[in-house]
Amino acid sequence: MGCVQSFREMCDRTKDTNIRFRLPLVCFVWQTAMIILFGVFIRYDEESDVHWGEYRKENNISSDGENDFYFRYPSFQDVHVMIFVGFGFLMTFLKRYSFGGVGFTFLIAAFGLQWALLMQGWFGSLDYTDGKIKIGVENLINADFCVAGCLIAYGAVLGKVSPVQLMVLTLFGITLYAVEEHIILVIIHARDAGGSMVIHTFGAYYGLTISWMLYRPNLDQSSRLQVSVYHSDVFAMIGTLFLWMFWPSFNSAITDHGDGQHRAAINTYLSLASTVLTSMAISSLFQKHGKLDMVHIQNATLAGGVAVGTAAEFMLMPYGSLIVGFCCGIVSTLGYIFLTPFMEKYLKIQDTCGVHNLHAMPGVIGGIVGAITAAAATESVYGKEGLISTFDFEGDFKDRLPNIQGAHQAAGLCVAICFGIGGGILVGCILRLPIWGDPADDNCFDDQFYWELPEDEEIIPPILQYNNHALRSKNVTAHPDDLTPRQHLGNTPATPRRFLGSSAASP
Amino acid sequence: MGCVQSFREMCDRTKDTNIRFRLPLVCFVWQTAMIILFGVFIRYDEESDVHWGEYRKENNISSDGENDFYFRYPSFQDVHVMIFVGFGFLMTFLKRYSFGGVGFTFLIAAFGLQWALLMQGWFGSLDYTDGKIKIGVENLINADFCVAGCLIAYGAVLGKVSPVQLMVLTLFGITLYAVEEHIILVIIHARDAGGSMVIHTFGAYYGLTISWMLYRPNLDQSSRLQVSVYHSDVFAMIGTLFLWMFWPSFNSAITDHGDGQHRAAINTYLSLASTVLTSMAISSLFQKHGKLDMVHIQNATLAGGVAVGTAAEFMLMPYGSLIVGFCCGIVSTLGYIFLTPFMEKYLKIQDTCGVHNLHAMPGVIGGIVGAITAAAATESVYGKEGLISTFDFEGDFKDRLPNIQGAHQAAGLCVAICFGIGGGILVGCILRLPIWGDPADDNCFDDQFYWELPEDEEIIPPILQYNNHALRSKNVTAHPDDLTPRQHLGNTPATPRRFLGSSAASP
Amino acid sequence: MGCVQSFREMCDRTKDTNIRFRLPLVCFVWQTAMIILFGVFIRYDEESDVHWGEYRKENNISSDGENDFYFRYPSFQDVHVMIFVGFGFLMTFLKRYSFGGVGFTFLIAAFGLQWALLMQGWFGSLDYTDGKIKIGVENLINADFCVAGCLIAYGAVLGKVSPVQLMVLTLFGITLYAVEEHIILVIIHARDAGGSMVIHTFGAYYGLTISWMLYRPNLDQSSRLQVSVYHSDVFAMIGTLFLWMFWPSFNSAITDHGDGQHRAAINTYLSLASTVLTSMAISSLFQKHGKLDMVHIQNATLAGGVAVGTAAEFMLMPYGSLIVGFCCGIVSTLGYIFLTPFMEKYLKIQDTCGVHNLHAMPGVIGGIVGAITAAAATESVYGKEGLISTFDFEGDFKDRLPNIQGAHQAAGLCVAICFGIGGGILVGCILRLPIWGDPADDNCFDDQFYWELPEDEEIIPPILQYNNHALRSKNVTAHPDDLTPRQHLGNTPATPRRFLGSSAASP
Repeated sequence: MGCVQSFREMCDRTKDTNIRFRLPLVCFVWQTAMIILFGVFIRYDEESDVHWGEYRKENNISSDGENDFYFRYPSFQDVHVMIFVGFGFLMTFLKRYSFGGVGFTFLIAAFGLQWALLMQGWFGSLDYTDGKIKIGVENLINADFCVAGCLIAYGAVLGKVSPVQLMVLTLFGITLYAVEEHIILVIIHARDAGGSMVIHTFGAYYGLTISWMLYRPNLDQSSRLQVSVYHSDVFAMIGTLFLWMFWPSFNSAITDHGDGQHRAAINTYLSLASTVLTSMAISSLFQKHGKLDMVHIQNATLAGGVAVGTAAEFMLMPYGSLIVGFCCGIVSTLGYIFLTPFMEKYLKIQDTCGVHNLHAMPGVIGGIVGAITAAAATESVYGKEGLISTFDFEGDFKDRLPNIQGAHQAAGLCVAICFGIGGGILVGCILRLPIWGDPADDNCFDDQFYWELPEDEEIIPPILQYNNHALRSKNVTAHPDDLTPRQHLGNTPATPRRFLGSSAASP
Repeated sequence: MGCVQSFREMCDRTKDTNIRFRLPLVCFVWQTAMIILFGVFIRYDEESDVHWGEYRKENNISSDGENDFYFRYPSFQDVHVMIFVGFGFLMTFLKRYSFGGVGFTFLIAAFGLQWALLMQGWFGSLDYTDGKIKIGVENLINADFCVAGCLIAYGAVLGKVSPVQLMVLTLFGITLYAVEEHIILVIIHARDAGGSMVIHTFGAYYGLTISWMLYRPNLDQSSRLQVSVYHSDVFAMIGTLFLWMFWPSFNSAITDHGDGQHRAAINTYLSLASTVLTSMAISSLFQKHGKLDMVHIQNATLAGGVAVGTAAEFMLMPYGSLIVGFCCGIVSTLGYIFLTPFMEKYLKIQDTCGVHNLHAMPGVIGGIVGAITAAAATESVYGKEGLISTFDFEGDFKDRLPNIQGAHQAAGLCVAICFGIGGGILVGCILRLPIWGDPADDNCFDDQFYWELPEDEEIIPPILQYNNHALRSKNVTAHPDDLTPRQHLGNTPATPRRFLGSSAASP
Repeated sequence: MGCVQSFREMCDRTKDTNIRFRLPLVCFVWQTAMIILFGVFIRYDEESDVHWGEYRKENNISSDGENDFYFRYPSFQDVHVMIFVGFGFLMTFLKRYSFGGVGFTFLIAAFGLQWALLMQGWFGSLDYTDGKIKIGVENLINADFCVAGCLIAYGAVLGKVSPVQLMVLTLFGITLYAVEEHIILVIIHARDAGGSMVIHTFGAYYGLTISWMLYRPNLDQSSRLQVSVYHSDVFAMIGTLFLWMFWPSFNSAITDHGDGQHRAAINTYLSLASTVLTSMAISSLFQKHGKLDMVHIQNATLAGGVAVGTAAEFMLMPYGSLIVGFCCGIVSTLGYIFLTPFMEKYLKIQDTCGVHNLHAMPGVIGGIVGAITAAAATESVYGKEGLISTFDFEGDFKDRLPNIQGAHQAAGLCVAICFGIGGGILVGCILRLPIWGDPADDNCFDDQFYWELPEDEEIIPPILQYNNHALRSKNVTAHPDDLTPRQHLGNTPATPRRFLGSSAASP
């Protein structure tokens, strides 16, 4: 810890949030690299290639409707909405970081999915006859999944990092994800349809560890901005609801055609419904006067979807899904009430979106549920064929028994946690280098350092502005206009200006 | 009426909106009951069960693509969006009840769909060989439909009830719906693809009757909050548009595979397009200076989707759909202009969202259109096979003629109205009991009684605050903090604070 | 130009924005015309008609799943969301024109799609045996496409026209579109799956030319309203993201079943991802302190979808898509930074949404990319069958070679530009007539002239109001209440009122 501490001090130099050359540089270099690597490696697979017509005839495929596109594209679009609108708007809840929430999600997801196609392709879709990665709609879904892991990590550091740091976080996150996924799903041969382990557990611990590495002792100087306002909470509900509604598509997107997708959707639908009730109940029970807290409604209601991810395609049974959702709603909401403050105070983990409650704990629960359900699978419930198709007991694994499979599921969970924490330490070290343009402790959760903000109708009495100068100039030596934040916006700051006022504002 | 009046007086005791134990209790008891009942009754159907592979072979089903999942899942997700984002955001239009609008929709829909799976299952999907309800994607759609009926009822009482009352309203609403639906669709054997009768007419009269039973003579004390602000109207447009766009999926979700779904989608699409134009026309025509009213755009533009529900799968013809939409846009908008104030003043029905204009009248029109279209069906238009498949003239009903079917459609409409009004009276009586934590007349349409509200940038000059104390303490004896609403939010209330202001706010 | 100038002066009479009779009249007349024309011309096609069952048997179609509905309906709904939520919310970015942005989009899209079904039907789906247009889901998609062209044009004139003008713009726009599309796709036999040419290039030049015809020399008088506020920028991101996410569905909606749809979706997905990075890079690079500009994020990130439209179904290769997106992100963002101000100042083209940068330039790039890709198509890449199916070298065109096809693609692009500019001049002349109720130069971008606005929490000190009177009465002689805009909203305007304040506001 001493070493970490001194490293920290070395890094805590004056912050400069001007990313005028760093962000464009990173974007251009990485996008150019993507083009070159795609040129060398990526081609269409047989279902998206123009030779599909001939392939169809050769393989006696009766109809164009058998193209995987029609089995997966509606689910893919739902997942796509979850990534960009779901995660993006869920992160708009801060009063003054909505641009960063939705905008940086957009940036890192758009980069991440390209890198994911390559990384996952090298591990999973490489055609050894010609050395090319062949992609189709399932690869697009997997790339979106991979991005989800990084967006979960973003939730833990929301408002405290620069977009350049996020690009680095994503580059390494995708890389780690692809390796970890390969180990869990291929080598260990665990099943994880909805990614409770590979996506949620990994992503959450990856983000939490980075947040711990980037611990900001004076973050309370930004606490005035680490809150929501009425409208930003409503915006966040857009994210919550699209995540909630489309989670059945997320968990069923890459399961087996037919009953696999069908069952995964039903299980997730039920688990999520159950979570809503227990989240609301706990939220009301632990609040003064029984009032509901929007933080819980926006987040904890989704825990059931996370926790049912691994077991979604198993014969969990409808009541089993309800039970999983029931427990997760309680655990996740209690986490927001008790664990998040505890972690910040004693463990020095500042978790902006509470990803520990929404992704880490439900993810681990999901992994355990998956292990138990797999271990308890019997031929009387699944049938001989069903066991083989559900757990993919084929090839090298044709003699594996359900209880052995359960142990491997548990092993997969451990791998996900280890990759999350290990990767987070590594990437946290890199992100502490004082070259990434991250904000100072009293400038967190504030869009004005990375975004041109529109003129707002604000009332800035001169006395407050003066005090503000004093406050802000204390330990910030950024570019000059930061000293008078948004002063350029108010042409006559002493005059009260109207909210949303139009014509009357310019006398 | 005297009896009702004295009952009312008995119930009008001091209101206490603290639901700290009541809401959690209801949530936990009901969710636990769901788990037990699901454990006893609910299983996967043959298309979502792991034995689908064997079932497929036994029944010579050529492809996994024949699984009902692929015919209905995209429509299901559209319906799901309508329920949670559509209804939820449509109800965010009030300036200070957006949390309640979208949040309570979330709560009761999540509970309602579980109860609906059971209730509808007992009536429709019970497998008598083993006493289990077998569910698949069509059951999920039907559960969402069932919930829609209760959400329509919520629209009539929006802002005037507690979440505990909403849970009761939903429990009974789903129960009544399942019975009414069974009578109309199975016993009477009426057709109602998009639920003009079973969903909209029933739901609207159910809600309106409850609102009449819960009449609040002094609701004008909350009138300052029964308005929108600029941004809340834009939020409501999210709800409107998702309802409008996905209504073709709603009306076609459970119609016959093939031409049935195809035709229902086209009819609904056209009817809705037509409604938009006539709604806007009437809105402009009856407003001073021809200005458009957002209330009409948000609501009346949807009337065409309601009205074409019953006849969507019939050979209504494209121009028939346009005519239905044309009329409903006019009727619904005129309802908002003339009927809603009339009903509030003379019939003592306070209809927050105007569900009478959007659901009741168009629903009845839809039922009538369905009856006429069915009665006018001829073999020359439908063909022999087409008549049978469209009207399901099979089994006990194989000798039914179209004109008889028309009469039965009309009978179905009457049943829906009777169940709505009868159920509403019953549930209204229950909801008048002074145990549910509903707000006083001057506390309606206000999120602060059921939600922890974020600190807002507000200017509260001390003089106003003082007056406010005087005003509020007049007839409220709720918990102490209500006397100074949101005072805890303003740490220096005498100082003007910035809207959306950030750093300058804390000197 | 002298003639144009004098015509302009004739038209620049006192503006009266009261559209109380004009808007309803136009809506009723045109909707009635639609009903009559639909009655005469439009019927269901064989896949949505009740005789589908017989048709299926006659044509040996093995399953209901072969109905085109199941191949195209999910894509149709995505396109539908793009039209209404995508375009609608993208236009809510102005601080005081969100109602107009989303509301008028709703109005003209609902009208336009009806007229498009007729116009496109006469050209493309007319059954000569009975003189009827037979419609199915593909016609609905095409109608939505057609509407997209008009909405792009709306983007150029946003805030500066009346809804009556928009109805005229749409009527002519749809008509021109249908003719232009017929010439390009049928007569010239160019391919244009995602409509880079027929939709985007045509729509953008149509709108830009109209904007040039309606040039407002004193528009700077409204410049205080031609800006966004924090929340309106977040609303606009809803539009951006839904357009971005569903663009793969847009470009693949009407391509060939199977690999055609599959490949178009992949190409668009990749191109869009690439655009995001280069847009953000350029936005940061050209801004002081490297801050990102929401205008670029909201718009330029979509340019890749436009530019890949024509070539989406070709064998563009994944890296080719990335390159197209890479370039378009740069070009489009630079356009916003340099070209839009230049065009306004020197070319007298006031382009509110910057459609020249988002649709015109990327559309032209898309046309050129399509021409090159087509000309470069070889049998070694496509295979013999693939060439025929991709470029539809059948019937009259069975001997056409790829290089000839490339030339025809280029010809198609020219036709689109000519129709856009020519049509824009014609319609611009019509829209200059002083009968349409358009706003004066200092009343642009303001919802209050066409919408009943909700009471807002505003602070209007009397001194500002007085000045405002002086300002506004200068050259406006509209109805009296315009002189004191929103004064009716403030009952005690001298008293500061709370934002979102509730109870305290009425002492």
